[in-house]
Amino acid sequence: MQLFQRDQIARAVAIDRQALAAVEAGFAALGRGQVVQPPILSMAIEESNGEVDVKTAHIRGNERFAIKVSPGFFDNPKLGLPSLNGLMMVFSAKTGLVDAVLFDEGYLTMVRTALAGAIAAKHLSRNDSRRVAVLGAGEQAEKQIEALRLVRDIAVVDVWARRRDAAEAYADTLRQRGLEVNVHGSVGDACRNADIIVTTTPSQAPILKASDLPDGVHVTAMGSDSPDKRELDDSVLTRADAFVCDTRAQSETNGELKAWHGAEVPFKVHELGGVIARGERLRLSPATITVCDLTGTGVQDTAIAGFALSRLGEESRDEP
Amino acid sequence: MQLFQRDQIARAVAIDRQALAAVEAGFAALGRGQVVQPPILSMAIEESNGEVDVKTAHIRGNERFAIKVSPGFFDNPKLGLPSLNGLMMVFSAKTGLVDAVLFDEGYLTMVRTALAGAIAAKHLSRNDSRRVAVLGAGEQAEKQIEALRLVRDIAVVDVWARRRDAAEAYADTLRQRGLEVNVHGSVGDACRNADIIVTTTPSQAPILKASDLPDGVHVTAMGSDSPDKRELDDSVLTRADAFVCDTRAQSETNGELKAWHGAEVPFKVHELGGVIARGERLRLSPATITVCDLTGTGVQDTAIAGFALSRLGEESRDEP
Repeated sequence: MQLFQRDQIARAVAIDRQALAAVEAGFAALGRGQVVQPPILSMAIEESNGEVDVKTAHIRGNERFAIKVSPGFFDNPKLGLPSLNGLMMVFSAKTGLVDAVLFDEGYLTMVRTALAGAIAAKHLSRNDSRRVAVLGAGEQAEKQIEALRLVRDIAVVDVWARRRDAAEAYADTLRQRGLEVNVHGSVGDACRNADIIVTTTPSQAPILKASDLPDGVHVTAMGSDSPDKRELDDSVLTRADAFVCDTRAQSETNGELKAWHGAEVPFKVHELGGVIARGERLRLSPATITVCDLTGTGVQDTAIAGFALSRLGEESRDEP
Repeated sequence: MQLFQRDQIARAVAIDRQALAAVEAGFAALGRGQVVQPPILSMAIEESNGEVDVKTAHIRGNERFAIKVSPGFFDNPKLGLPSLNGLMMVFSAKTGLVDAVLFDEGYLTMVRTALAGAIAAKHLSRNDSRRVAVLGAGEQAEKQIEALRLVRDIAVVDVWARRRDAAEAYADTLRQRGLEVNVHGSVGDACRNADIIVTTTPSQAPILKASDLPDGVHVTAMGSDSPDKRELDDSVLTRADAFVCDTRAQSETNGELKAWHGAEVPFKVHELGGVIARGERLRLSPATITVCDLTGTGVQDTAIAGFALSRLGEESRDEP
């Protein structure tokens, strides 16, 4: 059994095309019905403002599967510690023995979440998308742009965040990477000329509404991943020409389909894996509006953990 | 963060009174409503005849909680490997950071499962119980007796197993520990004079029926822990004067209450934690028949993992 620490893992795995292909293959397998993916195990530790989620999935025929434990303890910053943490265990799918433990402290979750946004944009946004509106200014606001640049020729970023100083700092960071960045005082201003909108906030109330959507835009909503969060107003979903989510059941409980949980949804719900596996073309014209809701799936974790382990294996073979 | 291997853990933790007290305290906290215990996450790996379960629980106010991963791959013996395996991760309940990983390969599960049987017998069986019928001849058949001896003065064991040679080997092992052991060719013969009956099989069809129960007996059924298993005929439950389970929801899906899942149960269902916490007296006379169905709970894992970590900490302090 092998143990790997965050630094090693971060040296071996980056937001790049190979990692994107690995996660995309995981979604495609999900879309072909080749994945066993049980519901998320979730437990609240109320006295510490914490929660812990366990996600897993098995891609049939794969040699390994991963189980990820993600604690989120939201008072940690007061103690000088990051809120998010965690590790991934990789097991042999033949014997159930532990192959490796990746003490990645959430690093691989960061990577596979950013890549899922790029995969959604690859299959749903206009090919000529150059301008991205980002709502939020945290780590994913930055990593989503990094990942999008793998699939689209991004030149301009428009940012809005609840805290103006955070948006300004974010803009400085991205300008150093050769992007034109504009900071906006409202969501509407930030989104006015967007080809792609990415929402990356922990908001508990919708921040984006239908009237903020320019024609032809693609929206990726990746912030809402628990029953108490929402980023998209229902009008965004009903206005969209095509609505896609990573997993319908999770979208209804943790994502943007909450308003229709247990009720009939007045539009067709696609899943990203199916879109990829069947090559579904949901963008019928340059004016088509597409929306993708990402809640985070176990198959992404199994895919990125397997990819990380293969990269880490190559690294150790390279050593003298 | 600390890592511990099976050998270290097995040297530090045994089936003894202190470990029993730790697990019993976990059950009592559950009975007082002080435990957050989400449903088990379970995933099948059909192509390998495998499954993996994840259990967790948090005892409110405790400094730590554990998450246990238990793979069961039932073709492993053909490869010369044990079927059961796994590890426990221990997290700070204040920050969500990993405190320790116990690579116990299922050892602590074996211990806490045996102890739960003893705890059930302590609260439900007659004080003067001396004779135990054991159905099954595997590891738990042995460990349940070891644990029972902590709470009752056991002198005679009557064993029945599907494979006669396994029962004979089991009898030899227990005789070496000073017990009188009789091997029987039928369940009815094994149970005829029992004070306590323990069922420890992976049976998928009931093996014990009401007509096998002598007056005053206590039955612990610890084998059924998944939707496809059953050890007790429904008649055992309806014949019992008191029916207790570790967690009602799990007993309905994975244990002996399956026949009434979603239906009204025609008898009162007690939970072991509540019996302990409230000091419920369910044995009203020497003839009372009690039944306890154990499916295995996250709170046992959190309790034994915390206990193991405290023992391992003492050990390391003792080193020069």
